Amino acid sequence: MLEILGKQAQAAARTLAHISAQQKNLALAAIATALRRSIPQILEQNALDMQNAQTNGMSRAFLDRLRLDSTRIEKISDSLLDVASLEDPVGRVLEQHVRPNGLRIQKVAVPLGVIGVIFEARPNVTADSAALCLKSGNAVILRGGSDAIHSNTAITSVIRTALDQSGLPADCVQLVEDTSRESSVALMRLSEYVNVIIPRGGRGLIRSVIENATVPVIETGAGTCHIYVDRAADAEMAAKIIYNAKTSHPSVCNAVECILVHQDIAATALPVIAAPLLEAGVEIRGDRQTCAYLPGAVPAQQDDWGREYGDLILACRIVQDLEEALDHIQNYGTGHSEAIITKDALAADHFLESVDAAAVYHNASTRFTDGGEFGLGAEIGISTQKLHARGPLGLRELCSMKYKIYGEGQVR
Amino acid sequence: MLEILGKQAQAAARTLAHISAQQKNLALAAIATALRRSIPQILEQNALDMQNAQTNGMSRAFLDRLRLDSTRIEKISDSLLDVASLEDPVGRVLEQHVRPNGLRIQKVAVPLGVIGVIFEARPNVTADSAALCLKSGNAVILRGGSDAIHSNTAITSVIRTALDQSGLPADCVQLVEDTSRESSVALMRLSEYVNVIIPRGGRGLIRSVIENATVPVIETGAGTCHIYVDRAADAEMAAKIIYNAKTSHPSVCNAVECILVHQDIAATALPVIAAPLLEAGVEIRGDRQTCAYLPGAVPAQQDDWGREYGDLILACRIVQDLEEALDHIQNYGTGHSEAIITKDALAADHFLESVDAAAVYHNASTRFTDGGEFGLGAEIGISTQKLHARGPLGLRELCSMKYKIYGEGQVR
Repeated sequence: MLEILGKQAQAAARTLAHISAQQKNLALAAIATALRRSIPQILEQNALDMQNAQTNGMSRAFLDRLRLDSTRIEKISDSLLDVASLEDPVGRVLEQHVRPNGLRIQKVAVPLGVIGVIFEARPNVTADSAALCLKSGNAVILRGGSDAIHSNTAITSVIRTALDQSGLPADCVQLVEDTSRESSVALMRLSEYVNVIIPRGGRGLIRSVIENATVPVIETGAGTCHIYVDRAADAEMAAKIIYNAKTSHPSVCNAVECILVHQDIAATALPVIAAPLLEAGVEIRGDRQTCAYLPGAVPAQQDDWGREYGDLILACRIVQDLEEALDHIQNYGTGHSEAIITKDALAADHFLESVDAAAVYHNASTRFTDGGEFGLGAEIGISTQKLHARGPLGLRELCSMKYKIYGEGQVR
Repeated sequence: MLEILGKQAQAAARTLAHISAQQKNLALAAIATALRRSIPQILEQNALDMQNAQTNGMSRAFLDRLRLDSTRIEKISDSLLDVASLEDPVGRVLEQHVRPNGLRIQKVAVPLGVIGVIFEARPNVTADSAALCLKSGNAVILRGGSDAIHSNTAITSVIRTALDQSGLPADCVQLVEDTSRESSVALMRLSEYVNVIIPRGGRGLIRSVIENATVPVIETGAGTCHIYVDRAADAEMAAKIIYNAKTSHPSVCNAVECILVHQDIAATALPVIAAPLLEAGVEIRGDRQTCAYLPGAVPAQQDDWGREYGDLILACRIVQDLEEALDHIQNYGTGHSEAIITKDALAADHFLESVDAAAVYHNASTRFTDGGEFGLGAEIGISTQKLHARGPLGLRELCSMKYKIYGEGQVR
């Protein structure tokens, strides 16, 4: 069954790889229009998923991720037009040079081929992933969670019809309708047809993909981000940045989860940093020293270090120096986004050089780790692995490359 | 046991990531000198491996790959100096730009971290892989085959002593002494400490790594390369290129294994192409039509298509047109190197655009797919996968990247 989807995807990918940017953009616009026109039908199917989720006693946060309404579908539709407006990454000449023997060597961007996206309960991922894969010339096989199957089926059906009407193969976008664990594992192991698997979801999903996949994987998402407040920090700036990084969107992966404060500045800076946080209802879980400085803090447990709360909770630890902060980040960070607040340029350089993460900041909020904020356009996730792509996974990162070599009869 | 090696490698990698190019080059030079000085000891250990291999009745080709002599060790030593002379890939600024909000975003190359190299019976891979990993700032864990264990142990010991004397951690280069299948699988699954696994060997090894690894893999090596002789080919040029691609080094992965000849040119071109090949002792396995044109050819079987002979054997098929050649390559190619010989620029463009392989050639020998020939310096293999690196896997491809972001208090 999955083998058939794989074959179809591969055939579609071979056509799609040579389709012009204009035709892809027209297809994206057609999908955007079709989604708006199909709002009633999509909402009807989403209502079935919502009913099931309520019956199954899912949490409010879960229901919120699953729920669609007109505004949300219009937003999805708009984001397709955003993707259409981005530069086509395919065919870009990445490097070229002429060898002494006259061979002209060109390195050009090409699509990856077939991408498998395995995700959980957010139906917007369906349209979103389809658009990014389409624009980068890749066919996609989507495998969403069972909780969103009605919504995903409805959205995929709208996309496939619009593709067909735009003269592109409908099989550029396919949904695995079987939502069993077996189908998920089968997709991860479909290495004859699938070039990359991108899991979009929690740690459990990502771990299962790494454990089982034979197809190459791009890990995304896990983010335990730290902000280190150096001895030479401007306490007001630190307070502003930490407030932003914790409260502007606590559930996302680039939100800060733990702050590390230099002992020399802790007594004066901590109250400045903590006041707006406590006022916004943030729970601060501090080490012994933090609790001594901040009566509003609660004692942290060992398992608070390295934890991704995704909530209005912030761990706080006093460190002796920059080196201890670096050690903490090395031990507990997930290689996503880490920041230092300091006026000391040498300390900043040392931090940016030493921290092994996708994005390392000096005097800025970790919340900027995002394709749009980096000026790279929409992204399918934030890669926390080192191979192929690190940080925002945008259109360029959804490409591979090949060498084209032009000769006049050269032999070696 | 492997966990200990992993921890040591990770610690060494953290030091190595921040070592200057000069210091790495001095270490490479020290290793090169130490290897020359240790020729007697290394040869003594190699003799033990050779004795065992002979006792085990290994093939002549196998014994040749395993065998070291003074000249070969001197060549290994020289290649270390070549690596030292290459540009340091670490710290290279890949992109930078300033955002409208003033954030300065810099994308810089950083080492991958810890690389696991799993290889078979060629002891030169030990020094070779160690040098490329060292220069690119990565610690390496080497796991060679049991047949070369004495040679590999001797070479690794020389390298580690030289590293130590150069002030670098000896654990930058470690050898897994346990050559059981279990140790190999354990290394592939050491995802807490190892960032990438590179298998260097035959298809069986590569398949085992893909099947078992949880660490990300870069596949290398499998090469079934084709040369398509178009209707508008210069037969003399085709003959020269094919002769070179088949006979200059038949056992390597960029050698041609199959030629596809357009039916309109077959009658005149085939004899021109075949004459020097037959004279050089190449066995031509042709389809029915080929055999009709070439009395010297033997009939090909179905399993000759897609086969990597690594020997003086060449499959040959007559095709109706360019499309049939493209279909054949799509079905039987391994995505390594493919070539078209033609004077027709449009046919060449279509071929270079359509073929999905690491390197696609117009009027040149497939034998050029090589880091040195591409002007990229030494390589650890030819990647035939699409993720991270495709084609020659040199120093740049042994790097990851990170974003450094410089702000003045920006929040989102």
